[in-house]
Amino acid sequence: MGSTFGQLFRIHTFGESHGGGVGVVIDGCPPRIEISQEEIQHDLDRRKPGQSEITTPRKEADQAEILSGVFEGKTIGSPISILVRNKDARPEAYSEMKEKYRPSHADYTYDAKFGIRNHEGGGRSSARETIGRVAAAAIAKKVLTAQFADDLEIVAYVKTVRDIEAEVDSDSVTLADVESNIVRTGDPAAAEKMIELIKEMRADGNSVGGTIECVIRNCPVGLGMPVFDRLEADLAKAMLSLPATKGFEVGSGFAGTQLTGRDHNDPFRMEGDRVRTASNRSGGVQGGISNGENIIFRVAFKPTATIMTAQDTVSTEKEDTELTGRGRHDPCVLPRAVPIVEAMSALVLCDHALRQRAQCGEG
Amino acid sequence: MGSTFGQLFRIHTFGESHGGGVGVVIDGCPPRIEISQEEIQHDLDRRKPGQSEITTPRKEADQAEILSGVFEGKTIGSPISILVRNKDARPEAYSEMKEKYRPSHADYTYDAKFGIRNHEGGGRSSARETIGRVAAAAIAKKVLTAQFADDLEIVAYVKTVRDIEAEVDSDSVTLADVESNIVRTGDPAAAEKMIELIKEMRADGNSVGGTIECVIRNCPVGLGMPVFDRLEADLAKAMLSLPATKGFEVGSGFAGTQLTGRDHNDPFRMEGDRVRTASNRSGGVQGGISNGENIIFRVAFKPTATIMTAQDTVSTEKEDTELTGRGRHDPCVLPRAVPIVEAMSALVLCDHALRQRAQCGEG
Amino acid sequence: MGSTFGQLFRIHTFGESHGGGVGVVIDGCPPRIEISQEEIQHDLDRRKPGQSEITTPRKEADQAEILSGVFEGKTIGSPISILVRNKDARPEAYSEMKEKYRPSHADYTYDAKFGIRNHEGGGRSSARETIGRVAAAAIAKKVLTAQFADDLEIVAYVKTVRDIEAEVDSDSVTLADVESNIVRTGDPAAAEKMIELIKEMRADGNSVGGTIECVIRNCPVGLGMPVFDRLEADLAKAMLSLPATKGFEVGSGFAGTQLTGRDHNDPFRMEGDRVRTASNRSGGVQGGISNGENIIFRVAFKPTATIMTAQDTVSTEKEDTELTGRGRHDPCVLPRAVPIVEAMSALVLCDHALRQRAQCGEG
Amino acid sequence: MGSTFGQLFRIHTFGESHGGGVGVVIDGCPPRIEISQEEIQHDLDRRKPGQSEITTPRKEADQAEILSGVFEGKTIGSPISILVRNKDARPEAYSEMKEKYRPSHADYTYDAKFGIRNHEGGGRSSARETIGRVAAAAIAKKVLTAQFADDLEIVAYVKTVRDIEAEVDSDSVTLADVESNIVRTGDPAAAEKMIELIKEMRADGNSVGGTIECVIRNCPVGLGMPVFDRLEADLAKAMLSLPATKGFEVGSGFAGTQLTGRDHNDPFRMEGDRVRTASNRSGGVQGGISNGENIIFRVAFKPTATIMTAQDTVSTEKEDTELTGRGRHDPCVLPRAVPIVEAMSALVLCDHALRQRAQCGEG
Repeated sequence: MGSTFGQLFRIHTFGESHGGGVGVVIDGCPPRIEISQEEIQHDLDRRKPGQSEITTPRKEADQAEILSGVFEGKTIGSPISILVRNKDARPEAYSEMKEKYRPSHADYTYDAKFGIRNHEGGGRSSARETIGRVAAAAIAKKVLTAQFADDLEIVAYVKTVRDIEAEVDSDSVTLADVESNIVRTGDPAAAEKMIELIKEMRADGNSVGGTIECVIRNCPVGLGMPVFDRLEADLAKAMLSLPATKGFEVGSGFAGTQLTGRDHNDPFRMEGDRVRTASNRSGGVQGGISNGENIIFRVAFKPTATIMTAQDTVSTEKEDTELTGRGRHDPCVLPRAVPIVEAMSALVLCDHALRQRAQCGEG
Repeated sequence: MGSTFGQLFRIHTFGESHGGGVGVVIDGCPPRIEISQEEIQHDLDRRKPGQSEITTPRKEADQAEILSGVFEGKTIGSPISILVRNKDARPEAYSEMKEKYRPSHADYTYDAKFGIRNHEGGGRSSARETIGRVAAAAIAKKVLTAQFADDLEIVAYVKTVRDIEAEVDSDSVTLADVESNIVRTGDPAAAEKMIELIKEMRADGNSVGGTIECVIRNCPVGLGMPVFDRLEADLAKAMLSLPATKGFEVGSGFAGTQLTGRDHNDPFRMEGDRVRTASNRSGGVQGGISNGENIIFRVAFKPTATIMTAQDTVSTEKEDTELTGRGRHDPCVLPRAVPIVEAMSALVLCDHALRQRAQCGEG
Repeated sequence: MGSTFGQLFRIHTFGESHGGGVGVVIDGCPPRIEISQEEIQHDLDRRKPGQSEITTPRKEADQAEILSGVFEGKTIGSPISILVRNKDARPEAYSEMKEKYRPSHADYTYDAKFGIRNHEGGGRSSARETIGRVAAAAIAKKVLTAQFADDLEIVAYVKTVRDIEAEVDSDSVTLADVESNIVRTGDPAAAEKMIELIKEMRADGNSVGGTIECVIRNCPVGLGMPVFDRLEADLAKAMLSLPATKGFEVGSGFAGTQLTGRDHNDPFRMEGDRVRTASNRSGGVQGGISNGENIIFRVAFKPTATIMTAQDTVSTEKEDTELTGRGRHDPCVLPRAVPIVEAMSALVLCDHALRQRAQCGEG
Repeated sequence: MGSTFGQLFRIHTFGESHGGGVGVVIDGCPPRIEISQEEIQHDLDRRKPGQSEITTPRKEADQAEILSGVFEGKTIGSPISILVRNKDARPEAYSEMKEKYRPSHADYTYDAKFGIRNHEGGGRSSARETIGRVAAAAIAKKVLTAQFADDLEIVAYVKTVRDIEAEVDSDSVTLADVESNIVRTGDPAAAEKMIELIKEMRADGNSVGGTIECVIRNCPVGLGMPVFDRLEADLAKAMLSLPATKGFEVGSGFAGTQLTGRDHNDPFRMEGDRVRTASNRSGGVQGGISNGENIIFRVAFKPTATIMTAQDTVSTEKEDTELTGRGRHDPCVLPRAVPIVEAMSALVLCDHALRQRAQCGEG
C-alpha cells in the first residue's frame, strides 16, 4: 500500500535498483490525452544518471516503454503502464553492503521491518524508484494543461547548496534558465560556485546537500481540500516522500514565524475582476486551497549518505564494524532532484484538479 | 474525501465552528481497548479554548459524548463515534465576515472552490475541527501502549515564539514539564518571556507565531512504509494539515543542509543487542522507517491571521474594502496547538503500527 | 475500514442497535445541493420499524438530526453528519443472547473475530445500521437529479415472498404503486397473498424470505468502471452488504445461463440518434458500464433468523444448549428492505457519477 | 481507480488484449513468502487459451516475468510486478469491430464513456486482463497457506452448462477431480455431456453459459468485516467483476428464499471445543464473517457474446447495420473461468486475512 500516490490520478510505482526494471501504473487518467513516448523520455532524461560531470556516472539510458493504456497516441482511460529496464547494474559493487548497514541509508530499517532485503543498489530505497513518478508526471502535466490550465508552469530550481544561495526571481524564472546550467539553479553566478563546491566534495569523497525551491504559476483557484488533504499537506507529503528530504516549507515558511500577524497577513485587493493578494506570504494557498497566486515552497535535501570514507557501522550479524562507501553515486542529489520535485508537484495538482472536478463540477 | 486521515486506523472528522457540533468517526480500531469518556475529555481539555489568559476567551466545555463503538468501557471493533456540541456560538460576531473576506483566512478560497460558505466562525476551516483529531488520538495512544509499545512517549512543546527560543532537552522533557506553564514550553525561563510577548501582542491587537517541536520516544523499530508513505512523509502531511502551519522538518531539517555528508551521517553502533546510532541527525527515521531512535520534528505556525486592526480586503461583491478583526481568538495558536501536534503524531504512529502488523505480522 | 462505502461520494456509518445512536458521515458531497431535514426524514420513515402490522413493533421515531455540512438548506462541500438517537431500546430483552449465540445471526462470528461483542439488539449487526445508508442516499438522490439525470428513477419492489411471485412491469411500476401496499410489491393481487403468508408465519413464530427486484430508469450512459469497479460489481457488493442477503443477479441473471448466445445477445439498433438495444438481457450494463437501458437486478433475502421457536445452539461457554427467540422482530424483512435496496442503488450511482465526472469531464 | 482490488493485499492490473502486454502490480504482500516463476506459471497455464479443444485456439504461452518485489525466491515486501507479453495478436481480425459495436460486448459503452476505444481484441475489456489476477492469486494463496491456514483449500468447478447439472460433493471434490476433464467439472458423467454440448454449440457458431460453484474449505474463523466489507459482499464484487458474469449467490442463495426461518437456520452445536453448525445454509458466512464452515457460492456466466452469426447492430457512425462474429473465441467461458473464480476467492481471503491481522492481531 505504500507505493501508491494520489486519490484519483493514482500512480503505483514498482521496481528495485537492480532487477527486471522499474516503472509505474497510472490509474484514473482522463481519456483522449495526447502523449508520446518522446514526451515521457524527455522528462526521464532530465532525471537520468550520468547526464553531467556532477552526477553519478552510472550509465542508464532509462528508456521508457509504454505497455498499456495508450492507443494511437492517446490515453484511453485504462491504466497506463510504463516500464524502464535496469541495464547498467553492478550487483558486485554491493557485496559488502550485503553484510554491513550503510550509515544513514535504509539498509538497517528495511531489514528490521521486513526481515529480508534486496541489498543490491539499495533495492527499493534506490532513487531509481522515482523514474515511475517522473514518467507519470509527464502525463499529469499533459492532463493539467489540456483540461485545467493551459498556461500552468511548474518550475523548480536549486535554491541553496550548503551555504551558497541563489538569487532567483520566482515570478520570472524559466525552465530554460534552470536547464542552462548543470546544477539546475536559476542564478548563473551561484551556479558556478555550487558546481565548484560539488566537485570539491566529490574529490574529497564527501557529499553536500541543499534546498530546492519550486514555483507553480497560473494554478487554478480552488485546488486542495479542507482539513486533511490541504494542498500544502499533500505537497509536503509528496516532497517528504522523496529520498534524502528533511524538510518542507510553503510561502513564508519557518521565517514567517518571525513576523507578527500584522506584517504577515496578505491583504486582498481587486485586480480587474480577479481577487488578488498584495503580498504572498501564504505561498498561494489559504485554508488548504489554492488562491490563484504563485504557489511557492522549498524542500531541504540532506547531503548524500554515500561517502567514500571509512565510517563506523554494524554488520547484519550485529557486530560493530567499519564500511567505506563504494558504488556510483551523486555527491549532491539536488541537480537530479529538480525534475523530481516538479514531477511530484504535477502529480499533486493533477490529482486535486480531478478531485475538484468530481466534487464541484467544471464551473 | 478530504476529511479522512489514516489507512487502517482511519478517522473521519466532521463539523463546523457553529452548528450542531463537531466530532469524529474512527474506523478500524482494534477491539478490547479500554477507553473512558474521561480519558478522551482529559485530552480535549488541553485543547479547549478559554483555558488560560493567553488563549481565546471563547467558553466551550467541549464535552465529548461517545455515541458508538465502545461497550462496557472497551472498544468492540466497530466505528467509534464521538460528538462534541457547539455551545458558545456567537454567529452575530461574524456578520461582517459574511460580506468580506478575512485576509489570510480560508474565506475567499472556500467561496471560490465551493461557491458557498458557512461564514460563521470560519465554518469548516475553524480549528474546532481538530477536536475530532484529539479525541481520536486519545484512543490511538491507548492502542499504541496496549499493543505496540507500552513505554511510548509523545511529547510536544513550544520551541520558539517569534524570536524567543526555548532550551529543551528532547531526551528528558516530560509532559509535566510542558504542562507546568501556560505557553506549553519545556523551558521555564523562556516561558515567561513568551507569555509576556503574547500578552503584549494581544494588547496591541496583533498576533505572533512560532514553532513546536515534538519528540517521540520508544517508538518501535519498523514503522513507516517505503516510497510514498514514509513515516516522515505522513508526519509532514499530518502537521501541514493543521491550520496555520507553514513548515515541517525532521531531524537535522533545513539546518542539516549546512553539513557535509561526513558530518551528517549517523554512524551505527551496537548497544547490547540493539542497533543504535551514535548521533541522530536522521531524526529517528531512515528510508522512511523508524529506526528506534527518538523521532524529532518541528512545525512552523504562522502568526494568527485574525488581528484587531483595520486591513485592506475585498468583499464578496468583489470590491475593495476594509475589515477590522472581531470575534474571540488566540493571539498565538501555539499553546493550544501543542496537544494537537501530539494527537496527529499518535494517529500517524497508530496507523503505521496496524499497517506493520498487517503486512509483517507481530514478530 | 469496513464501515465506509463509495470512493468519491463516500459514506461512513456508525452506531449499534442499543447505545447513543446510529448515523452517517458523508464526505465528498457536491456543494450547493438543496436538502432538508424533511427529505431525509421522509426516506427514513419508509425504513423505520413499526410502520405496519407486518413489521416489528419496535417503536422508533428515527428522527434525524443534521449535525454538519448543511448551511441555510444547502450542502457546503464539508462532511455531512446525520445522527439518529436510539430511543426504544430494551436491552433486557437480550440478556439471554448475552450467553447464547442466536443461530444464523452474527453473535458467534462477532465474538470469534473481535473477542468482544455488544449483545444488545445485535449491536453493530443490527439492521438499524442501515439508517445511515438511507439518510445518505436521500442526499445522493438529490445530487443525481440535480447534476446528472433529472429524470432518474430508482424503484424497488418485492418480487417474491417465498413462492408467491408478483407480476410487475419494470418499465412502468411507480413508487406510488409500491407504496400502495404494506408489503411493498407492485402487484396488488400478489400483495394480499404475501401479507397473508407473512401474518401466518408470524402467528406461527416462524419467518419467511423472498426477493426484491429493483429497476433504475434513465440512468446516464457511461457509469461504471472497467475491470473491478464494474457497475454491477459495485451493485452486487452494495446488495450483499445488506443483512440477510444471499444472492444478487443482474439482467438475465441465473436464468440467462439457460439461453444460448444467439438468444441471449442484445442486438443494437438506432432510435433517433440514440443507441438502444432491442432486448435487455444485459440488464442495462455492458462491460461494467451503463448503456442507457433500464438497469434491473434482483436480490435474495433469507427468512429472518429470529424465530419464536426453541432451537439448538451453543453458549458462550462453549456448551450445547437451547434458545427460543425473543425481542421484537420482522417476520419478513422484505417490506422494510425495499427502501434500503433503493438507497444502496442511489449510493452506487452517485459515486460512479462523480467518478465519471472526475475522469471524463462533464461532456 | 477501477483497476485496483483489495485493501491491504492490493492488486493493480493493467494491459489490453493487443499491445505491450498485460500484468499486475501487487502492493502490500507480506515479506519472506517463497514464490517462484513456476508457481505463477502453473496457475496461468490453467487459464491460458488454446489448452483444449473446447477453448479458443488463440496461441499464447502467457509466459510470466516477475519484474520486481521478489529477491532470491522470496518476496521482500515491495511491490511485486508481473508482466505477460501479448504474442499471438491479430489486430486485423478486429478491423470490422472498429466501425461496428459487437452486441452484448463492451464496445459501445467504452466508446460512450471514454470517447475513445482500443478496438483490437476488446482492448481493456478482454478477458486477458484476468491474467494479472491469476498471477497475483498464486502469491495470495502462498501467503494464506504460509501464514493463516496451511490446510486451506479453494476448489471451483463447473456446476452447470446450460441445463446440464453436475453432481459434485463440495465436501470432498479435489482439484485433481476438476482437472481430470477439460470442462473442469467434478462429475465425470456430466463432463462428457457438457463437452458434447459445447462442441455442438461451436459447430453451430453459437455459444453457451452456465454456473461455477466454488467451495473454500478450512477457512479461518473471523474473516470479513461488519457492514460494507462483509466477506460475501467482497466475494460478490469479486465475482461480478469478472467478464460475462450475471449473478452470485452464497449458501442457500436464491433457493433459500423458498424455506421458512425454521428450516433455514443453521443450529449451532459443539464438536469437541469447536463451534460448528449442524447444517450450512449460511454458506460459511454469518454476519459477513466466516464461521469456519465451508464457504460455498455459485456464479452465473452468460453465454459468450461472440457468436459466428449475423446479428443486428449499429456502427460507430450511428447507423443500423449487421455484424458477424470473427476472431478466436471460447464457445463457453466456463472451463477457463474456473481458475479465475478460484483466483478471485484467494485474493478476497488474503486481503481479509491481512485486515483481520491488522485490526485484531494474530490471536
